Parts: sequence; C-alpha cells; structure tokens
Amino acid sequence: MARQIRVVVIFIYLAIFFKVSLARTYSRASIQQEVTNYCLSWRLAVEANNVRAWRTVPMRCLRYVETYMMGGQYEKDLELIMDQVLSYANSIDVAKDGMDAWILDIDDTCISNVLYYKEKRYGCDPFDVAGFKSWATKGQCPAIRPVLRLFNKLINGGFKVILLTGRDNETLGQCTINNVQSQGFVGYERLVMRTAAYKGQSAATYKSEIRRQLVEEGYRIWGNVGDQWSDLQGDFPGNRTFKLPNPMYFVP
Amino acid sequence: MARQIRVVVIFIYLAIFFKVSLARTYSRASIQQEVTNYCLSWRLAVEANNVRAWRTVPMRCLRYVETYMMGGQYEKDLELIMDQVLSYANSIDVAKDGMDAWILDIDDTCISNVLYYKEKRYGCDPFDVAGFKSWATKGQCPAIRPVLRLFNKLINGGFKVILLTGRDNETLGQCTINNVQSQGFVGYERLVMRTAAYKGQSAATYKSEIRRQLVEEGYRIWGNVGDQWSDLQGDFPGNRTFKLPNPMYFVP
Repeated sequence: MARQIRVVVIFIYLAIFFKVSLARTYSRASIQQEVTNYCLSWRLAVEANNVRAWRTVPMRCLRYVETYMMGGQYEKDLELIMDQVLSYANSIDVAKDGMDAWILDIDDTCISNVLYYKEKRYGCDPFDVAGFKSWATKGQCPAIRPVLRLFNKLINGGFKVILLTGRDNETLGQCTINNVQSQGFVGYERLVMRTAAYKGQSAATYKSEIRRQLVEEGYRIWGNVGDQWSDLQGDFPGNRTFKLPNPMYFVP
Repeated sequence: MARQIRVVVIFIYLAIFFKVSLARTYSRASIQQEVTNYCLSWRLAVEANNVRAWRTVPMRCLRYVETYMMGGQYEKDLELIMDQVLSYANSIDVAKDGMDAWILDIDDTCISNVLYYKEKRYGCDPFDVAGFKSWATKGQCPAIRPVLRLFNKLINGGFKVILLTGRDNETLGQCTINNVQSQGFVGYERLVMRTAAYKGQSAATYKSEIRRQLVEEGYRIWGNVGDQWSDLQGDFPGNRTFKLPNPMYFVP
C-alpha cells in the first residue's frame, strides 16, 4: 500500500513538473513565434517596396535577419530568382550586333557585404559611412555564387553585361575592380562607377541617367538585377527587372 | 540480478524505439521544412514581382498557401502594410479642392475571394472564368477588414477614394456595387468598372488609361493600393503604390 502511494505521489509530482515546464516552454515559443511572424511581414513588405526609406532593421528582428542571411533561406530565395532570370534570358533572341545588354548592380548583387553587416548587427546599427568605406577598400567582398553563375551564363549567351554601382569612382574605383575580378566577375562589357558629376544624386537618379546614356549608345537593356528598388526604378529600367533580397539596408 | 537485467533490457528497448521514431519524425519534418522553404521563396518572389505570368500555384505549395491565407500570417502582412499606408497618408497635406485621390483595387484588395479560391485549391487549379463569374454574381465577398479600416480613414482624412476594378461592368456591375456597399465600403468618390471600350485589354493597360483620365480631370493620385502588380504599374501609377499580398493568382 505504502509503495503504491509512493508511486502515485511520484506520478503527480512528474505531471506537475512537466506541465509547468511545458507551459513555460510554450509561452516562450509563442512570444518567439510572434516576433518571427512580425519580422517575416516586415521582410516581405521591404521586398515588395511597401516599406521605404527605412534606416535600420527593427531591433527585435536582429536574430531573424541573422538566421535569414546565414541560415540558408537567403540563398534559397536567390536560387529561385536566378531560375526566373535564366528562363527569361533564354527566351530572348540575341542579335549579332553586340548591343543586347543586362545591367547588374554590384553591392549585395554580385558581391556580398554580409560579413561587414554581421558586425553592424545585420543592419540594426545605422549606416556607417567611414566603416563601410574602410571595408570596401579591403576588396574582400565574396562573390554571391548564384549571381556569379548567372553572370557567366549571360556572357556565354552573348549578352553584354554592364556592372553599374553607386560606389564612388575616385576613392573606391581600383579596389572595386580588383574585388569583382578576383571573385570571378571577368568579361563584363563595362563597370560604371559614380564620378564627380553624379555626386550627391540618389541612386535612382544617377542610375537612370547612366541607363539613358546606354540606351542612347544603342544598347537594348533586356534585364536589370539589383538588391535595391532604386536599382530598378526610374527611367529606362530595362525590359524586366529582378529584385534580389536585402533585409539589411535601404538605398534611396 | 534478474530484475536489474529486466530493467536494462527495457531501457535498451525504449532507447531503440525512441531513436527509430525520432529518426522517422526528423526525416518527415526535414522534407516538410524543405517544401516550406521553397514555398516561402516562391511567395517572396511573387510579391517582389520576380515571378510573373504564373498560371497556378505550384502543387507542392497547396498546404503552404492554405496555411498562409487562413492561419493568420496573411492578416499580419496586411496590417503591417496598412501601418505604412497610414503613416504615408498622414504625412500628406490635403487641399480643400477635393482632388486629392487614392485608388483602391477591389478583388482581394477591398473584398476577399479566398472562400472561392479555397474550392480551387488556393490557386493550384487554373483560373475558371465561369466559376469566378458565378461566385462574383452572388455578391458575397467579405470585406478585408484592415483595408476597410484604411478606406474609412482615408475618407475621414479628406481624400477621395476611387475604386478601380477590371470586373466587367455589364455583367458584374450591380452585384459588385451591392457587394462592396453591403461590406461597408460606403462614401467612395467613384467605382470604375471595365466597360465595352476596354474589353480584352490587360489590367495594366486598362487601369493606366483610367488613371490618365483621372489625372486629366485634375485628380492628384497620392496612393494606389492593389494585390496585383498590374494594378500598380504602367502610366500614372500614383505617388506611392502599395502591393498587398496575393499568392493565389496572377492578373497580367
């Protein structure tokens, strides 16, 4: 009898213990789930250009953006977009005049700044002009592999690939050329950087102006790939545009 | 001794049992996770206008889209976008001439077709012209609550709200008016439907033409809200556009 009572008491104790710790785990998980849901909504709204001119990633989304960038989903998103780009590019009849062009942005399109942004809490810290310049000067941004594969396929397909970046030509010209080439971006038609004439202009204005010049030279811009909406909007955006994900920063 | 052996045997048995069932659960969960990751990439690419002219939702994403639409994340996404719309709308100085306008699409912007699409496997089945017409004729699309709240706030803020839909005026005119009004969309400036003159045109072309007329009448289009990119692209898109989520169908 005493033994049975002991067993019953142990069972009750265990039941209470598990219930309390389950309830705690559940409540922690549900708060975490709410944050994840919010950050997913935020990221979607950023990518659909509904949230604009944001300065920093919401602090509560730090872990979410870190997991997104480093945990594999970012690459998965890129791969799916690359499939779309290629299926479109393959549908184009490339002429023999060498004027069928694609425009690719550089930062976080061809080469990645995620290692820099890791130190800036994935964009939870505000943009640091000097810090970014010093990082870019090192010329050690790694290639974004799915975009490098696209780059090579476009060139092999007969397109002229024009790299168009808002980086300052005077201070970052050589390190940028070294960086993209050392990462395998070789054989592009042109690498256009911001010269003094365009200083202070928004990316959308500056890039529109460069695209206008390209179109006036006779280039047919079939596609335009960038991680910022300001790469893809304005004049002569190209026949199709592709927005690559970037939940870390916003360029106007 | 015999008792100790029995206990050890039971432990070994339990360990093997748990390991096997855990491995099974893990492998099922990992396949499911892969599908979820893919469908998230697909949905993001749809919302960012990277995937275009798609006819059906990928079959493997049926459960994903169902969960998205019915499980709460769709509403969360809408709410976050509405916050952005309102914070922008509140920043506008509304003039006294009554020409400050917003354009809102109707289907899956003001009122929801999700109950219809539920029967169409959330868009995994191809578009069914007759089926949709018969559903729309009933006039029973429920209001999308966050957008209804926005609608009322815009009107209270002094804006003229113009509802602009690609629905056919002749066959769906009366039921559409009844539907939106019975769902609380009362006090709009105008409800514009597709007349015979625009039959066969793409939504983007038709809506651009209507917006051109509105601008010629003197309206200032401050905002434009729709669930399709074809609501938001083309001429006179409006000073700011807001893309509401819709992973169920694509309108060119």
